[in-house]
Formats: sequence, structure tokens, C-alpha cells
Amino acid sequence: MSPTTLKSRIQLKVRFNECDPLQIVWHGNYLKYFEDGREALCIKHGISYLDMKQHGFATPIVKSSCEHKLPLQYGDTFEVETCFQPADSAKLVFTYKIFKGDKLVCVGETTQVFLNESKELVLINPPFFLDWKKKMGLI
Amino acid sequence: MSPTTLKSRIQLKVRFNECDPLQIVWHGNYLKYFEDGREALCIKHGISYLDMKQHGFATPIVKSSCEHKLPLQYGDTFEVETCFQPADSAKLVFTYKIFKGDKLVCVGETTQVFLNESKELVLINPPFFLDWKKKMGLI
Amino acid sequence: MSPTTLKSRIQLKVRFNECDPLQIVWHGNYLKYFEDGREALCIKHGISYLDMKQHGFATPIVKSSCEHKLPLQYGDTFEVETCFQPADSAKLVFTYKIFKGDKLVCVGETTQVFLNESKELVLINPPFFLDWKKKMGLI
Amino acid sequence: MSPTTLKSRIQLKVRFNECDPLQIVWHGNYLKYFEDGREALCIKHGISYLDMKQHGFATPIVKSSCEHKLPLQYGDTFEVETCFQPADSAKLVFTYKIFKGDKLVCVGETTQVFLNESKELVLINPPFFLDWKKKMGLI
Repeated sequence: MSPTTLKSRIQLKVRFNECDPLQIVWHGNYLKYFEDGREALCIKHGISYLDMKQHGFATPIVKSSCEHKLPLQYGDTFEVETCFQPADSAKLVFTYKIFKGDKLVCVGETTQVFLNESKELVLINPPFFLDWKKKMGLI
Repeated sequence: MSPTTLKSRIQLKVRFNECDPLQIVWHGNYLKYFEDGREALCIKHGISYLDMKQHGFATPIVKSSCEHKLPLQYGDTFEVETCFQPADSAKLVFTYKIFKGDKLVCVGETTQVFLNESKELVLINPPFFLDWKKKMGLI
Repeated sequence: MSPTTLKSRIQLKVRFNECDPLQIVWHGNYLKYFEDGREALCIKHGISYLDMKQHGFATPIVKSSCEHKLPLQYGDTFEVETCFQPADSAKLVFTYKIFKGDKLVCVGETTQVFLNESKELVLINPPFFLDWKKKMGLI
Repeated sequence: MSPTTLKSRIQLKVRFNECDPLQIVWHGNYLKYFEDGREALCIKHGISYLDMKQHGFATPIVKSSCEHKLPLQYGDTFEVETCFQPADSAKLVFTYKIFKGDKLVCVGETTQVFLNESKELVLINPPFFLDWKKKMGLI
């Protein structure tokens, strides 16, 4: 297990337009909250969408999952805790926990891969990414 | 007034995720219905997003409005009637009427401009667009 | 003209999922930004969706418009300035200005009406709303 | 294994506003496609959102996952194949396959639970649902 853990925590508020006729956040909108959490972590640590782009890579999501424990409603304030999960292969894995106060609302995970400028899947870790991992104390 | 009117009519159904806690379609989602109507008309008549792109132009929306007469609810089937409104200046204007059965649900309008490949505003009608208007009997 | 002006200003950031293939915020998403601005103002001054609900009213949007001057792109930080526009008739009118730095990005307007608990349109100002206007120094 | 399989297949087209700056469908929008597929199946077989509501139940999604094999782009036509997965416990499980032509684009799964009118989780199968399963030849 890696000695370093990259984590971030942001606070968000449920928008009216994110709720459905059941008066709760529509399940698909949690992926937006995960994206907000992931972006906060990635910007903080220099591996955001724009950083990747500068290095010639796009990192589309190839897998996502979400498990709901409690609903969120319009007006609720909540926190997204995002955690970078080091992987050996050339991918980016993040896990998410959403909390309303001290209650766990949902958990999730996403996996991203690297595409080069020709939109081809890159199977080995790009050098800049290995450098970044070293700098972060992850390898 | 132009003797030719370009019109299209498509049928859609309200998705669960387009409705809000008031149990009606969230107002901002009508712009998606307008887009569906506009695309149907544009594809039919050869001036779709992809046709434009091939000629080196993008046509972002610079103005939109929507006026609601009646709400739409989850499960409702409705029709979007889109009408191309010929303009002299270099822009694309479409008007929309949404009907549920014979009842008018809402009306709207959008305006698009032409951007060239350098993303600069084009103030005169692109030649391909004038050709298209002639072919359509609009000028 | 009313001597009092109710205004609010919030800062937001463009989300990746709000941008379209033209690399700019999809026009319909500006209505979400307007909603964020309106909510901030309404919560601050006690006429939010939940306040209305407590008084037995819903206030759906019956009209909206948006005019774009400049595009917003992924990662941009911007401000939404919302202004309550006093009206004599039973409706809620808000105007919006979005700024990126000191540049005006877009302007817009929305109109809401009052529906009672039977979802009927209320044509005269609800007493609680007149009280609120007095308290705010608007009448 | 059950001798009966409930399946449905619908055709959809990628909307412009469902695509992101990478020129592909934003990953979270696949949950909308799954919803479209699920609804088609549920309406066809009498267990739609509105059927459930009539029996006094809501069936929020408590788990979802999606795995992407290939991207979808603006203008693409694709098919969503939805399959009802019989479960013994009181839940609704659906699996999804999205195809573009004969190529598999993505696979996914959702799980829903039953909430009664007091919004309490129902741990045993509601009688109407058992009747429905019998009628369908699933038990």
C-alpha cells in the first residue's frame, strides 16, 4: 500500500434542476458531483483535464459506478471526498464518498484511460505521469 | 415575405430525468427540445452542424427565448414544430412551437451566427449559405 | 422607479460536463447559472422555493431569455449578478448579467408566476408576497 | 435460471448537448440512455414509474454501473438493449447493452428498491410485483 494518499474534500449544494419528480437528486447527477470532486483534486495536484491536454493526452472515463445509501434533496449541502487510487497499469482510478453532515450518502468509483493525440489507447504509463507519481511520493 | 417556408415537425416524449420537483419539465430542458427540432429541420435540408463544419463554419447560439403556456409532465408525448425564419443579415433564426395534442405548450426562438475556423464572427453571409438559400427558394 | 434594488452576485466555475463539442458552455446551461444566481438572491431575502412552498405557492418559470456576448469555456470562473425587478402584477421578474472578469458574457431575464396548492394561476399578489415587498422597501 | 427473458431494444440518436469537449458523449449521459431503455421495457410490460406509483411504490435507483468499450459521437445512431434480471429479493435489476451497428459500445447495470408511500424501504416483494412476475412467467 502506498504511504501517500491524495485526497480532496469539497462542499456543494443540491441545485433545483438536479432533482427529479421523486424530490431527490436524479441518480445520474451524482456523476457530476464526482466530476466536481475529481476536478478539485486534479487541479490541486496538477493533473487536471487541461494539464493532461498540455501533455498531449485525453483521459476519458471508461468505467463508473455509484452506490446510494441515502437520498439528497433540493437545498441539501453535502461534501464530496475524492481519493486517488494508485494503479500500476496506465489508468486513473478515483473513489468518492459523499457525506451529508456525518452521514454517508453514497460511494462511487471511476476509471480513466490515456488516449494520445491520435485518440489511440496508451497502454503504458506516459512519462509525465510517472514523473508526477514520483513527485507525489506515490511510487 | 418569402414564398417558401421551411418547417419540420417531430414527436418526442418527456423523459423522467427532464422533470423537476414540481413534477413538470424543468424550463431549461425546453432548449433541448428546440435543439431536437432544429436539428431535424437542418439535417433534412442540409444545413446541420456537420454540414456547417464541412464548410468551415460553426454556428453558436447567441440568443434564445422561451415562453411557456402549459406545463409538460413525465410521460407526455408532444410535438416540436420548427420554422426557419429567413433573415437578410448573416444569421440563422428559428422559431419553435411545442404542442401537446392540439394545445400550444410553448413558443420560442433562437438566433445563431457564423464563426469561421479562426472563431471570428462572419458579418456577411457565407457563399455556401447564399447558394443554399437560392436552392431552397428563399431568395 | 423603486428606491431599493435587490441584487446578488455569486461566483461560479464552468464544469466540464456543461461544455459542448464547440468547447464552450452549451447555451441551455446558462439557465442553470441564472437559477444559481436567482436562488442565491431568493435565499438571502427569504423568498426561495422552500419559503414559497411553506406559504402554499409554487413559482414556475413562464418566460426566459438569454443573449450571449462572449462564450465561456471549461475552467472559466465567472460571476452571476441577479437583480429583482419589481412588478405590479402577480409575478416575479429577475434579470441576470454574467461577467468574466470585467467583460460582460451574457444577459438574461426570467419571469415566474404564482400557482396555489391546486396548481391554479394566482392573478393577484399573495398577501405574504405584498408583506415581503413592504418589508424590503419595494412598495 | 428463468426460462423467460424480458428484453427490449430501442433506437436513439446522440444529441449535440449530450457531447462534451472531447467530442464524445459525456459518460454521465449514458445513464439517460439506460433510463430510456428501462422505461421502454417497463412501459411495455406494465411496471413503469406510473404503474408503480399507482400501486403506492417508488423505485429509486440505489446502484448503477457503466463500462465503456467505444465512444459515441454527435449524430451517431445507436441501440439500447435492456434486460430484466430476475432477483429473489425485493429489488429490480436491469442490465444494458448499447450497440452502434454490430459493435458493443457499452454495458451497464442498475438496481432499484421499493419505497412505500411513507418513503420506507420495503424488504419483501410487494404482492402486486409477485403477481406481475407470475404473469410474466418469471416465477
